Amino acid sequence: MSEPLKITARAELDEANENRQQSESASWLRRIRNVWRGIAGSFSSTVRADLSSANDIRLLREQMQACLDARGGEVSARARAALLGETYLGLDDAGRRRFLQLMASGFEIDRKTVDAAIEVYHNAGPEDRLKAEARLRRSLQPKHMKLLMQFNALPQGVKFLVDMRSDIIRLTEDDPFLLGLGNDLRELLSSWFDIGFLELQRISWDHPAALLEKLIAYEAVHAFRGWDDLKNRLESDRRCFAFFHPRMPQEPLIFVQVALVNGMSDDVSVLLDESLPVGAAEEADTAIFYSISNAQSGLAGISFGGFLIKRVVDLLHAEFPGLKTFATLSPLPGFRRWLSRSVADGSYVIPDDAVQGIRSLHEATETKNRAAALDAILDDPRWTEDDNVKRVLEPVLKAAAAHYLAREKRSDGRRARDPVAHFHLTNGARIERLNWLGDSSSNGLRQAAGLMVNYLYDLEKIEENHEAYSFTGDTALSSGVKRLL
Amino acid sequence: MSEPLKITARAELDEANENRQQSESASWLRRIRNVWRGIAGSFSSTVRADLSSANDIRLLREQMQACLDARGGEVSARARAALLGETYLGLDDAGRRRFLQLMASGFEIDRKTVDAAIEVYHNAGPEDRLKAEARLRRSLQPKHMKLLMQFNALPQGVKFLVDMRSDIIRLTEDDPFLLGLGNDLRELLSSWFDIGFLELQRISWDHPAALLEKLIAYEAVHAFRGWDDLKNRLESDRRCFAFFHPRMPQEPLIFVQVALVNGMSDDVSVLLDESLPVGAAEEADTAIFYSISNAQSGLAGISFGGFLIKRVVDLLHAEFPGLKTFATLSPLPGFRRWLSRSVADGSYVIPDDAVQGIRSLHEATETKNRAAALDAILDDPRWTEDDNVKRVLEPVLKAAAAHYLAREKRSDGRRARDPVAHFHLTNGARIERLNWLGDSSSNGLRQAAGLMVNYLYDLEKIEENHEAYSFTGDTALSSGVKRLL
Amino acid sequence: MSEPLKITARAELDEANENRQQSESASWLRRIRNVWRGIAGSFSSTVRADLSSANDIRLLREQMQACLDARGGEVSARARAALLGETYLGLDDAGRRRFLQLMASGFEIDRKTVDAAIEVYHNAGPEDRLKAEARLRRSLQPKHMKLLMQFNALPQGVKFLVDMRSDIIRLTEDDPFLLGLGNDLRELLSSWFDIGFLELQRISWDHPAALLEKLIAYEAVHAFRGWDDLKNRLESDRRCFAFFHPRMPQEPLIFVQVALVNGMSDDVSVLLDESLPVGAAEEADTAIFYSISNAQSGLAGISFGGFLIKRVVDLLHAEFPGLKTFATLSPLPGFRRWLSRSVADGSYVIPDDAVQGIRSLHEATETKNRAAALDAILDDPRWTEDDNVKRVLEPVLKAAAAHYLAREKRSDGRRARDPVAHFHLTNGARIERLNWLGDSSSNGLRQAAGLMVNYLYDLEKIEENHEAYSFTGDTALSSGVKRLL
Amino acid sequence: MSEPLKITARAELDEANENRQQSESASWLRRIRNVWRGIAGSFSSTVRADLSSANDIRLLREQMQACLDARGGEVSARARAALLGETYLGLDDAGRRRFLQLMASGFEIDRKTVDAAIEVYHNAGPEDRLKAEARLRRSLQPKHMKLLMQFNALPQGVKFLVDMRSDIIRLTEDDPFLLGLGNDLRELLSSWFDIGFLELQRISWDHPAALLEKLIAYEAVHAFRGWDDLKNRLESDRRCFAFFHPRMPQEPLIFVQVALVNGMSDDVSVLLDESLPVGAAEEADTAIFYSISNAQSGLAGISFGGFLIKRVVDLLHAEFPGLKTFATLSPLPGFRRWLSRSVADGSYVIPDDAVQGIRSLHEATETKNRAAALDAILDDPRWTEDDNVKRVLEPVLKAAAAHYLAREKRSDGRRARDPVAHFHLTNGARIERLNWLGDSSSNGLRQAAGLMVNYLYDLEKIEENHEAYSFTGDTALSSGVKRLL
Repeated sequence: MSEPLKITARAELDEANENRQQSESASWLRRIRNVWRGIAGSFSSTVRADLSSANDIRLLREQMQACLDARGGEVSARARAALLGETYLGLDDAGRRRFLQLMASGFEIDRKTVDAAIEVYHNAGPEDRLKAEARLRRSLQPKHMKLLMQFNALPQGVKFLVDMRSDIIRLTEDDPFLLGLGNDLRELLSSWFDIGFLELQRISWDHPAALLEKLIAYEAVHAFRGWDDLKNRLESDRRCFAFFHPRMPQEPLIFVQVALVNGMSDDVSVLLDESLPVGAAEEADTAIFYSISNAQSGLAGISFGGFLIKRVVDLLHAEFPGLKTFATLSPLPGFRRWLSRSVADGSYVIPDDAVQGIRSLHEATETKNRAAALDAILDDPRWTEDDNVKRVLEPVLKAAAAHYLAREKRSDGRRARDPVAHFHLTNGARIERLNWLGDSSSNGLRQAAGLMVNYLYDLEKIEENHEAYSFTGDTALSSGVKRLL
Repeated sequence: MSEPLKITARAELDEANENRQQSESASWLRRIRNVWRGIAGSFSSTVRADLSSANDIRLLREQMQACLDARGGEVSARARAALLGETYLGLDDAGRRRFLQLMASGFEIDRKTVDAAIEVYHNAGPEDRLKAEARLRRSLQPKHMKLLMQFNALPQGVKFLVDMRSDIIRLTEDDPFLLGLGNDLRELLSSWFDIGFLELQRISWDHPAALLEKLIAYEAVHAFRGWDDLKNRLESDRRCFAFFHPRMPQEPLIFVQVALVNGMSDDVSVLLDESLPVGAAEEADTAIFYSISNAQSGLAGISFGGFLIKRVVDLLHAEFPGLKTFATLSPLPGFRRWLSRSVADGSYVIPDDAVQGIRSLHEATETKNRAAALDAILDDPRWTEDDNVKRVLEPVLKAAAAHYLAREKRSDGRRARDPVAHFHLTNGARIERLNWLGDSSSNGLRQAAGLMVNYLYDLEKIEENHEAYSFTGDTALSSGVKRLL
Repeated sequence: MSEPLKITARAELDEANENRQQSESASWLRRIRNVWRGIAGSFSSTVRADLSSANDIRLLREQMQACLDARGGEVSARARAALLGETYLGLDDAGRRRFLQLMASGFEIDRKTVDAAIEVYHNAGPEDRLKAEARLRRSLQPKHMKLLMQFNALPQGVKFLVDMRSDIIRLTEDDPFLLGLGNDLRELLSSWFDIGFLELQRISWDHPAALLEKLIAYEAVHAFRGWDDLKNRLESDRRCFAFFHPRMPQEPLIFVQVALVNGMSDDVSVLLDESLPVGAAEEADTAIFYSISNAQSGLAGISFGGFLIKRVVDLLHAEFPGLKTFATLSPLPGFRRWLSRSVADGSYVIPDDAVQGIRSLHEATETKNRAAALDAILDDPRWTEDDNVKRVLEPVLKAAAAHYLAREKRSDGRRARDPVAHFHLTNGARIERLNWLGDSSSNGLRQAAGLMVNYLYDLEKIEENHEAYSFTGDTALSSGVKRLL
Repeated sequence: MSEPLKITARAELDEANENRQQSESASWLRRIRNVWRGIAGSFSSTVRADLSSANDIRLLREQMQACLDARGGEVSARARAALLGETYLGLDDAGRRRFLQLMASGFEIDRKTVDAAIEVYHNAGPEDRLKAEARLRRSLQPKHMKLLMQFNALPQGVKFLVDMRSDIIRLTEDDPFLLGLGNDLRELLSSWFDIGFLELQRISWDHPAALLEKLIAYEAVHAFRGWDDLKNRLESDRRCFAFFHPRMPQEPLIFVQVALVNGMSDDVSVLLDESLPVGAAEEADTAIFYSISNAQSGLAGISFGGFLIKRVVDLLHAEFPGLKTFATLSPLPGFRRWLSRSVADGSYVIPDDAVQGIRSLHEATETKNRAAALDAILDDPRWTEDDNVKRVLEPVLKAAAAHYLAREKRSDGRRARDPVAHFHLTNGARIERLNWLGDSSSNGLRQAAGLMVNYLYDLEKIEENHEAYSFTGDTALSSGVKRLL
């Protein structure tokens, strides 16, 4: 289970959506132009796609200013902002970068106003204090915030802003102004995508194909092999849930896939096997969360995953009272990279006697060599067919993985190095079990030598686990995992 | 047409809603308590309705702090906030005031953090400037903002916050902290109720009775006389439109009533007469906006009216291409009060010869006396039956009303004194015509001696009118109204 | 609880509906005419409303024939039938009678074809028998059946036919042809309104006002006093269910009103009292069916009531497992009429000693006189204020009512004379209890001297009761009612 | 374009549906059993799947009789019928055949009752005639009709009956009783599927995947190559419309695929090419109906196609006023079969000089030989790569095809031999153009040597064409096609 977004696979879909969005937007803007004549007149519609003309930039700046001044009234300002948005959608990456830079650096806060407000703040008596604070706060509000909000007037304004944030992230590089604009936009989206606004929906085979194809495009953990695979994962012994925003009803924000099974799954290929018969959901005792994917790169840094899992646990609990265990079957995306590096630099040591059965490892006593020897074995998927190698490696790799998940921290010494582990530990889960060859796909072998892990959501312990992990970094472990350490 | 809210008439409905809300909320919270055990345990459920116990206050403060610290994780913090919200709903006005004061004054910004941030801001070099600004802005964010947002987790969280703002407005008096809390909440709601989120819906007789009864409760201009009156105002020659928020789907935010007629209406009683036959909408040449009412007192200061009127004009234009004129039939709510006062203090002078026909007025040459004599006539509705009085008063009052609407400004010298006039002038409308005895209901006589006014929305001139009015206070007038001046 | 339909009160609504229907129909037919030019050309659109012109009749007959011949193809025949339907809607009662008579007598079966088919039938060998039967059956099919079916092409075709049947019932008098046409139409509707097609819906205050006003118009047992009364009967301790046909989604076919209470209700005025607080539905142990009304007079003779009650029992059972008793609180619509007549002709005898306490009755020993004396008392509602009269009459009237319900049969000696009793007994209910002054409204006193009755639906006994009643006329009685006999 | 149903491809889907139907049905029946206890008791639930036990048959017959007698009341009879239906769904083909035979032959009409009714009919005077006719008609109604109707009580009763008719058609062979039962059922379905009940819906990519996969399964003309092909055929320059019945909302009855293009299409492979860009629907001048498929084999003989095409023409006309031409691009499914046979038996003669360019044909002067030679060429798809062969064959085959479509009739001398031609000619279309190599898929070559035909729907001429074709068999031809003859 991993949070990073799948950018490449959905490029095509995004393009299609943008086309549709542009055409809808266009028809709406035509109406704006017809009804509220004169607004569009002042802005050239023949902007170059790369915004390379100084004149275009000058006109753009004027239009932005007109929006901020609400010239012609609020309604006109919105119409103007919509036209600006339309212009933006017509730009290529170079043009968008220039557009964003203009917004980011051309409409900042006014230092003099801030200094004056600080002055007032310092001199305020008790009765004026609140006012002075509010004034200072207002003076620090960048002007482009208002502009960002005005883009909401576009027919698909929320999606527009989410996609604009995605652009900013992609185009920022080291530009501090773009970074600042991106942070301001995140703040705005963070408020608009407050969890209280989101709708949790079960997604089934009865949903529109236009929505379902987005699951295929956005799935980040176990890519769909086609529509039959999709249908299999929406059968009666599965559940798929997603959060939606009321203003983006056809766009899942994040979605999770659950299998209703008996006993805690240890092999994801079983879950993905279309040829197996559909199970009896009513008789299941375990819900396995086997994939969770963020769908909107423009919402990076705004977290829904914890809410999604816990609300889904609630819903499943209500629908299937027979469920006793809620657990994930998750990848360890950084395990092999960490293992290579740590064995090489000696920060993690594999005991000599543990690898006696494999000559190349046993003989490579120097750390560097051992790392190379290990990579040599694991880089060739055929090791999974060699019983001897498997027998030797299983305890070695499971011990290393347990160490990796439970002990390896980021620089703050508190957060787990593995992003998926960090996600579930933050949610209060426990590291329950390591599954040998739980994902023997080429991706699974490359990332984690085929290992998968179950995180257990024990409703009685979630809060306690969360507190321990959040404040001290202490990680909840099953006795089995403890033994591996 | 008036913006002020009708508070009294809907008290009953609000109560019913609150009951329903509480019961839904209760069932949801029961589930929270069952599933996420232990959260509720720490907070006494036997709080006194007036929050008079110091112990209750102490517990409350702890709970609020726990929400802000996100103890047990974000999900738990939300559940906790929901329980706090439930507590709030169970309080009486005294208790709510204490609850709000605790939020307002107990979770302010930290002066030291602000001072440190100012220090950093002053010393920041060009490359650190943006960061320093962001840090200072963050330090100025009152902590209760986070708490307010967390209440959104309640099943009807948005409505909860709107109603909480309504409480704050009602209970503030001169408490600067409550005022500050109210302003912070307005800022939050202002973002959440951005016009881009609102849905414009036509309301018809095919809508749920549960929604329609809210129109009856919220109508602020011409009160409904019952369901037959309501049905009449939703017939095929009428239109009623309202804005809704996706999270308050059963609650209109603001609604407007339109009659499709031939020629510009001059008498509202004709529009409200249920016995008249339904007109042929397709043949109408004029759309008369005869009532616009805000429905949520908690959204005071967040303006939707301009958007509503212009989008409705758009829609009507598309549905009925035969419509040539878009105008209102509006009240002058402050006219008589202004007239009495201004004649009394001599700031407005009625020419002697104009009132020759009415002895009591003609003889009362001193301003004070003339004002009293005028009031004496107008306070008794029977003057409308006296042809002589009517003949004399018509030109006098129409001239005075024209002056009142077009010339009388608030202290800034720019905004019209009459609130309805200010609303439509800001939207770019023109003062088109004064209608003698356009509203001879007792309310119409008391407020404006029966006068009504048409504001004309001329699509070609809206922007220009708006600009003129906004920047210089210049008011667009028809030639007829100019003549009256 | 009574089945007869309330014709008068909804005249107004029907008219409105017809108007709307006509206008929709008109726009659709305009399109037909435009697209399928030439169809309408052959039929004069200036038919007189009373169809008094022989020429109009001739043209009508030709058009009907063209529909039956499917001239120009099936689609054109449907368009033609729709135009005929439009013509029908424009006729007055005299015109409709002539239109119907033309259909009824002008397009009968062909005797010669029948005779030939009988000949074939008689001579058919075993292998041809089925074909011969089918041929004979087809030959007996009146041609107007096809025409009736073609009217289904009207935009609201099903409602059109239901209303046409209502017209036929109203206009038939003794015309055997109209009677035959009515029967043929009932047969068609009986198939189209098969219970399997109907949708059971709960109706609540969240339903469209346009639907709710139909409840007001159609309620046949306890008339609504207005919208507040309606809202009261849709509160959370009430249920209202109706059957709908998918092609008449805004038209209830039959609806039942249920109160969720504790103990079996004995007084309908308590159920209708808007001032009483709303009860707690979850704690109720009894569901009282206190009103059931057919809404479409054109569906007379097609019975949904039994299905409605049993499916509602099912639904309530599932929603409120605490419900133990399902019973009605029903009127005895024919009781007083029967009592007067039966006492007068001596077929029912009130024992002398039973009426000792009331002189006028005691002295009127002759049956005729006693009936007159009894009527004299009961015709004046003030008897309900006289404790002595009440004390004497209670046992007398309850015994008579028990006899009336349980023993009085129609001419077949099997079916209960009281229509409401027959309805519930057919459904398998038991006569449970007589309620003294259960309905002291003027209507209740006039029909049944204020008596009401509870019919009990005991799920364990329904089938048995039904069988007994259906085959032998045996009536299920509680021990209390038995004692009264 | 062909009407015959595609049976094989959807076997899998049907099975899945039946499974789902059974499980829903099961849960409903469980409830029936629980609530209306005792009903199920009398019928063994352990029937053998092939109904081979005489005892099972006896019990079945009793249950059927109980349904007809409505023992225990109508509601119970329906519940019983539902249980019978459940039993049916559990049977294999052998069992179903026995079940159907029992219904078909065990519950026929009663000859004595018929004879008595005929007696009465013969003796009836004018006043009794209608009654006697009705009585005779009733006596001829087979009892199983009532039983069929009662199955409508199943949760998916309508679909159940449609599928049962499909079974009957499949299992009938020469059994006259089953044939009779099938005809009776068709009569019932014919009334229930009256065109007035059907809903025309546009189907788009926004429809549920569960519905769209049915298009894939049911498409009978140009099979879908997968979901991408499907999406391509639902793009913005395409339209797909289907009729639905309100009680089978997820089951299309018949659907048509339309391409919006410029100029009349002559090659179906262009329409099916996913790689071509999406066209601009607004600029199209021609609507090409390139596929129409019946979806329910149980509705064979109940025709919707004519209505579908004409209503779709209406809709497209309204949406795209620029459309000038409505035409099909249709297959000639029986052309090659007819050609081989007719050339062989000499009923169609290919002139010698026309085939000079191809030696094998030219030399085969005897009809039989020429037919063989022609088949030899056309059976090998490579002839389409031989320019000489193509040049010679084009005029020969087009002339033959024109003759085949326009002149070849079925035995009645009126109906076109080609089923697709008959369908469109009945609808009033004109044979417009033959398209050489319009379908060079293997199927297109096998059926019609790659020829396709455009049928033109000229709204001005539809009625006239229909009348001519229906009454005299005269076929409307374009001048181009006339020239080919």
